[in-house]
Amino acid sequence: MKVHHGQVELQTTGKGTYEITDEVQKVVKQSGLHEGVVTVFVQHTSCSLLMMENAAPAARRDLEKFFDDLVPEDVSYEHDDEGPDDMPAHIRMALTRSSENLPLSRGRIQLGTWQGVFLFEHRRAPHHRRIAVTIVGD
Amino acid sequence: MKVHHGQVELQTTGKGTYEITDEVQKVVKQSGLHEGVVTVFVQHTSCSLLMMENAAPAARRDLEKFFDDLVPEDVSYEHDDEGPDDMPAHIRMALTRSSENLPLSRGRIQLGTWQGVFLFEHRRAPHHRRIAVTIVGD
Amino acid sequence: MKVHHGQVELQTTGKGTYEITDEVQKVVKQSGLHEGVVTVFVQHTSCSLLMMENAAPAARRDLEKFFDDLVPEDVSYEHDDEGPDDMPAHIRMALTRSSENLPLSRGRIQLGTWQGVFLFEHRRAPHHRRIAVTIVGD
Repeated sequence: MKVHHGQVELQTTGKGTYEITDEVQKVVKQSGLHEGVVTVFVQHTSCSLLMMENAAPAARRDLEKFFDDLVPEDVSYEHDDEGPDDMPAHIRMALTRSSENLPLSRGRIQLGTWQGVFLFEHRRAPHHRRIAVTIVGD
Repeated sequence: MKVHHGQVELQTTGKGTYEITDEVQKVVKQSGLHEGVVTVFVQHTSCSLLMMENAAPAARRDLEKFFDDLVPEDVSYEHDDEGPDDMPAHIRMALTRSSENLPLSRGRIQLGTWQGVFLFEHRRAPHHRRIAVTIVGD
Repeated sequence: MKVHHGQVELQTTGKGTYEITDEVQKVVKQSGLHEGVVTVFVQHTSCSLLMMENAAPAARRDLEKFFDDLVPEDVSYEHDDEGPDDMPAHIRMALTRSSENLPLSRGRIQLGTWQGVFLFEHRRAPHHRRIAVTIVGD
């Protein structure tokens, strides 16, 4: 049994979903580990993780619209130091996920057929994002 | 230290919560492992995981009603290939969980007194669901 | 590779967010483990976990207000045995997290600069809360 620490880095270009499934799988391959668990962890509080349908872009657009409506920017928040998308970003992060754990078998993360791992960016401005990928296994 | 991969399979009969605590514990028992962490992971994007009160069915009915109201089916979604419950299912999944990690000690998952592990089915039609259960431990 | 089980105990004084980052780190230090994954798991169904901005208290007040508005207490719930905050507590728990997994490297949990681990208490009355902290690593 071994521990392997890797990382996915990503430049976002505004609010939306960015698939990182292949990048996570790349870290797994580099680790040389085949059986275990892969922990994906976003080291930020204004973006989050999302497991989502990865075949239909329309599904992601509907999802993004739902979150825009549920957590509107045109509301008065006490915390608005970085603009109207600052506080909604934290709330949207809280409503989704910061860490996700994926089974690893035969060298591959065991996702469902249509399942992808996404970074969910909640800020309007471009951001450099770091996602820790830690594998515990053989 | 070892890795054990198991699975819980489930036939759902429509929207609602289905307790799988005993099934997860059964996989743990089969593994022969006693100390570690149990990763439960749903390999679908239209159902999800839920840790929930398992004594009062009324609490689960209230919860299901809340999600029906929060993510209504009678809204116009761009992605509706599989009917009006298609897109709400993905959103409800995103608002709850795909993976859950449970401490394992003395051969048993260490839940609170009233805590149960549930599959949260978001589709109206019956579905065959697969939940991966991976144990890393001794 | 070893498994270490620890616990954080907390007395809450009503609804709100309580930072437990230092307490989690303390369990990690006691374990003597340096590389691996730390699983934090709340053994209750009326409070939850939250990764959140830990520098600006205003951000947490906005977040708490959002959840108060999204899951109001003055609604008729079927399950209200323990008062008007009983059912909203379960729903708020379901919308946030029960378990969180944090990468552990060089003896420290690898959080982002402004990231903290919080217990999110959803009940009005004071409660004694137990959070399991399990470390798998070297």
